[in-house]
Amino acid sequence: MKTIFLTVEYDGTDFVGWQIQPNGRSVQEVLETALARVLGSPVRIHSAGRTDAGVHARGMTAHFETAADLPLAAYREGVNRLLPPDVAVREAAEAPEGFHARFDARGKWYRYAIYTAPVRSPLQGRRAWHLRASLDLVAMGRASQDFVGRHDFAAFRSAGCDARTTEREVFSVQMEQQGELLLIDVRGAGFLRNMVRVMVGTLVEIGMGRRPHTDVAFLLRQGCRQKAGRTAPAQGLCLMEVWY
Amino acid sequence: MKTIFLTVEYDGTDFVGWQIQPNGRSVQEVLETALARVLGSPVRIHSAGRTDAGVHARGMTAHFETAADLPLAAYREGVNRLLPPDVAVREAAEAPEGFHARFDARGKWYRYAIYTAPVRSPLQGRRAWHLRASLDLVAMGRASQDFVGRHDFAAFRSAGCDARTTEREVFSVQMEQQGELLLIDVRGAGFLRNMVRVMVGTLVEIGMGRRPHTDVAFLLRQGCRQKAGRTAPAQGLCLMEVWY
Repeated sequence: MKTIFLTVEYDGTDFVGWQIQPNGRSVQEVLETALARVLGSPVRIHSAGRTDAGVHARGMTAHFETAADLPLAAYREGVNRLLPPDVAVREAAEAPEGFHARFDARGKWYRYAIYTAPVRSPLQGRRAWHLRASLDLVAMGRASQDFVGRHDFAAFRSAGCDARTTEREVFSVQMEQQGELLLIDVRGAGFLRNMVRVMVGTLVEIGMGRRPHTDVAFLLRQGCRQKAGRTAPAQGLCLMEVWY
Repeated sequence: MKTIFLTVEYDGTDFVGWQIQPNGRSVQEVLETALARVLGSPVRIHSAGRTDAGVHARGMTAHFETAADLPLAAYREGVNRLLPPDVAVREAAEAPEGFHARFDARGKWYRYAIYTAPVRSPLQGRRAWHLRASLDLVAMGRASQDFVGRHDFAAFRSAGCDARTTEREVFSVQMEQQGELLLIDVRGAGFLRNMVRVMVGTLVEIGMGRRPHTDVAFLLRQGCRQKAGRTAPAQGLCLMEVWY
């Protein structure tokens, strides 16, 4: 058996998310269908994680095992010819036996894009959260640094998150303004469900002056989801990279 | 009568172009329909120019005349509420009597985006031309400067272009590599139909080594469309700005 490692890019707009679901078009299903055609037999792929409906990925990673002995190009160019325009395999490589895309991942980089302007943007609308309010970037920058380190992120996850432990390590949070786009890059060892989106939602409320910048440290100590900010919308989020 | 000046942004993917056409969804039609609802009567809008099917705009400009005495917000926030997600009015202002969005325009800025990578990108696919080949940017940069100035651009237009004169002035051509994106910014006083796309198609053939970099100067002198490069695909082009 060979273990094949894939890097996958997708526009999440028209997907119900990464994971196969009973009704709806998932990235995993579309990818497994294309791979099965190339391999000539059904295949199960295992990803580094899930992304929710509408969330994009520039560098989702996954692996699968196969007895087939095809050249790697079959899993990239070959599969890409069978995939719809909104998903593509960027890289295919052979991984060591026993490699697991999820359990061997050492970190992930998520990018959240906020479009700040009086009017919504048709060209940015699929990829960013539109906010009319101007944001206090100094307050947001200060608050964002309180996320860095190992903390209990219980306050920063979706109600449906069923992780057994809620301690996670965030390596860095960086904010960059590019014209009307505010990019928030979050790198960490692991993430709870919706964690980045609740972090961003809370930072935005700080940027709007609705919360003090000290609220992040308070929420991390306090651990109550109801006291944190709203979950920022899915279309602003993109999984950029997974490290091994 | 008042003359209202609009700046319009749209994602051209699902439009047959700016101009109203017998069958197909045009930006002009969608915009006129929304404006008519706000004004309570039919209206004709006049744009700075046309864009072809699939071409985007960050800053198309247009004007219309109306006897209505509505606040300007009606033409921006009010109209935007009636417009689909892929089009929006960015600015609305009152223009002097007799102002014409097309005849008073002094220049336009177009941006063409090329995505150079071995694999197509689902996240860039709607907005850029995907090329697997690596490009000789030095040769392209040299050739691009031959476009600058007042020239006969007869070789750089679509077969269907019916302009009476083919002399146009290009102010500047600038190329910038941003990661895997190559952005080509063309500013000029006026453009023939498909002119930027044939310019880009020709530059790309130079970048691939299929033509010498001296070909641009040759084609400008020679004026033969058949000898110029292919028309670069619509989705890479965006009308960024119109000056008055």
